[in-house]
Amino acid sequence: MGEKMKPKTLPGFMELLPNEQILFNKMKETIQKTYETYGFLPIDTPIIEDAQVLLAKAGGETEKQIYRFEKGENDLALRFDLTVPLAKYVTEYYDKLSFPFKRYQIGKVYRGEKPQRGRFREFYQCDVDIIGDGELSIINDAEIPSIIYNTFKELGFSDFTICINNRKILNGLFKSLELANESVQILRIIDKIDKIGKDEVRKELSSTIEDNKLETIMKFISIDGNNDKKIQLLEELNIKDEVFNQGLSEIKQVTKFIKIFGVPEENFKIDLTIARGLDYYTGTVYETFLNQYRKLGSICSGGRYDNLTEYYTDRKMPGVGISIGLSRLFFQLVDNKIISAEKESISDVLVISMCDDYDMCAEVASKLRESQINVQINIENQKVGKKFKYANNLNVKYVIIIGEDEIKNNVVTLKNMITGEQETIKIEEAIAKIKGNVEYEK
Amino acid sequence: MGEKMKPKTLPGFMELLPNEQILFNKMKETIQKTYETYGFLPIDTPIIEDAQVLLAKAGGETEKQIYRFEKGENDLALRFDLTVPLAKYVTEYYDKLSFPFKRYQIGKVYRGEKPQRGRFREFYQCDVDIIGDGELSIINDAEIPSIIYNTFKELGFSDFTICINNRKILNGLFKSLELANESVQILRIIDKIDKIGKDEVRKELSSTIEDNKLETIMKFISIDGNNDKKIQLLEELNIKDEVFNQGLSEIKQVTKFIKIFGVPEENFKIDLTIARGLDYYTGTVYETFLNQYRKLGSICSGGRYDNLTEYYTDRKMPGVGISIGLSRLFFQLVDNKIISAEKESISDVLVISMCDDYDMCAEVASKLRESQINVQINIENQKVGKKFKYANNLNVKYVIIIGEDEIKNNVVTLKNMITGEQETIKIEEAIAKIKGNVEYEK
Repeated sequence: MGEKMKPKTLPGFMELLPNEQILFNKMKETIQKTYETYGFLPIDTPIIEDAQVLLAKAGGETEKQIYRFEKGENDLALRFDLTVPLAKYVTEYYDKLSFPFKRYQIGKVYRGEKPQRGRFREFYQCDVDIIGDGELSIINDAEIPSIIYNTFKELGFSDFTICINNRKILNGLFKSLELANESVQILRIIDKIDKIGKDEVRKELSSTIEDNKLETIMKFISIDGNNDKKIQLLEELNIKDEVFNQGLSEIKQVTKFIKIFGVPEENFKIDLTIARGLDYYTGTVYETFLNQYRKLGSICSGGRYDNLTEYYTDRKMPGVGISIGLSRLFFQLVDNKIISAEKESISDVLVISMCDDYDMCAEVASKLRESQINVQINIENQKVGKKFKYANNLNVKYVIIIGEDEIKNNVVTLKNMITGEQETIKIEEAIAKIKGNVEYEK
Repeated sequence: MGEKMKPKTLPGFMELLPNEQILFNKMKETIQKTYETYGFLPIDTPIIEDAQVLLAKAGGETEKQIYRFEKGENDLALRFDLTVPLAKYVTEYYDKLSFPFKRYQIGKVYRGEKPQRGRFREFYQCDVDIIGDGELSIINDAEIPSIIYNTFKELGFSDFTICINNRKILNGLFKSLELANESVQILRIIDKIDKIGKDEVRKELSSTIEDNKLETIMKFISIDGNNDKKIQLLEELNIKDEVFNQGLSEIKQVTKFIKIFGVPEENFKIDLTIARGLDYYTGTVYETFLNQYRKLGSICSGGRYDNLTEYYTDRKMPGVGISIGLSRLFFQLVDNKIISAEKESISDVLVISMCDDYDMCAEVASKLRESQINVQINIENQKVGKKFKYANNLNVKYVIIIGEDEIKNNVVTLKNMITGEQETIKIEEAIAKIKGNVEYEK
């Protein structure tokens, strides 16, 4: 062979070591299982789509980030989210689906962003959406926080807050103040409240908004207390606007049903400053924060939209859904030492040989596998020290050692790699010990 | 809105309906779990790679099929298999991996083939490989058929045959006959034996091969009997060639250990006509056939290779592995009615309301989910008939009906959708019935 090509993974593409991958996959599977508990159906759309179909709606920033290319005569693009493919799917297979159509999709999406720490060009999204045919009950908006709650609980978190708001409240407020056209700009300023504080927000808003209107806005964003109190204060604003009052009625319903769906009071709250993008969502919106790590930003977001498929069909298809950006979340959790992959393993046991006779190793491995134990076997011509180092690197809990004595007496030596204890016992006994322990830890 | 864009999935891209997707995912998860039983570690390389890295080795057909494009100044390509990314991964993270490195990867790969029925441009491969650092014991070659066996057994098959051969036997045979340069051409003719028969093969070979050599080849491809008999006949050929005899010694070892690893005699056989591509594999090769559906071709193939990473490093990294082309396999199994997705479902239960009070629906759904039951809830303003049609489409086994009477008496009506029976009982009793049944069917 001549010159070697230096292999290199592209910048901005997450690639994990095996132990990290094990942890990542566990999280992905936990999310999937929880989504399935709620009866969401899986779909798996292609990563490559017709660029015209994929970009029917996109524009601006999204279009610049897209991976778009030609192959033969086809104008192709890689999906940049899972929502546009869902719109395509629902329209294309409308006749074969039952509505409300509840689907989840977990898969990679692509955005050619400027690479920066913790931002990826290829990343997993884990989405659930409920799509109605014509209409969709507001109670669905309350089931979503229940899904968020159970997902993060199953992922091992407890100290997190699901924040909900309703865009109609914001839109109605601005409409009633005749500030509808300035709403984008106002929301952008309000959005900074966490960073710059209330006084600074007031100062920025005062440059363009009259005093009496500014007072209402400040009163609005100062609304505080528990959820019931916030609803009461919203009612006391006494705003005579149909959209506002529809939003208020919806958030009351959603809050009521979130409780019935079993989400504890401490894990959700109404947060009237959340807007979530400026034109896509039309009703309920969600953001989720780890209370100890608020700086990570929202780890699960979404909302209600009036019409998923408007670029493809005249049929009206309202929906509500959320997305977890798993690649970024995983990176942040590891980076902030909130989770660690150090001790992850696939194998429960490593079987190693102390002599040149490997028959019993193979037999023992097969027996363990028949008992649903994950087993690796090291049958290489390596020194014993190297085999134990291998066991340590794999993070196995047990090593089964088979040498000449074990073969002669038809027993195995079982070493517990955590306690260091070892004993020479019958294979069935070893299986019982391993299974007892393995199950105990689950 | 103006003109609507007709949404269309690209030809050659598999996109399944939800019930098909459920079955597909079950198969994918079964494969994953079985691979994990053998201690293989997961990796997940990017779909997009640097084109130079990905194509270091490729040429000819592969290069033509590749999805290759530029983004900014980068020359990019989509992976066309999982082996080249593995070679990249092993070279890039060599210092952080333990060898033998056993990894599995299940993911989509891309080939811009001419679209034809059952051939996809985006398809899943499910790969396992064992990579050694410098050397790799031949016993690994025997563990692979054990993985194939358990994978297809877990997938619900029993009547299949894993065929093994060793390229060294073929190479040594041709070398000893001084036909090494013609071997590609000869193998191509032998490969047709299933289609055209032995006599036709002899006729085609006779045009270029001398009689005495032809006799040895015909004797070789006529070798028949059980595995032990075949090995005996191979020995009786009495070929004095080092490569041939190394291959013979390897296939004897592999055959012995396949049995020890618990693969029944009826599920594997030596098949001396299998060659599997012409330059990649260097030792053991595998193909797997469903005996009743031989026409599907090999459903799981692979082999031993001397050097995985030769384009990237001077280090020698031999390996052995297999791949299941899951998208194609799934299509073939459904197409031939070997499997059916008709009755697949995610939800065990659908909760529906017979009145306008949805509180109890939400409560009941939450209680069922706490008991690990997958539940969907239909809280739409739909007629009862439509809700039952919905239940039928979802293939749920149970419907829980909640009307005014149920609310008043704090009970539920549980309808078994298979038997049609229904009874009005306490929620705890309903949970017990559903769980009893759900577990029974697993």
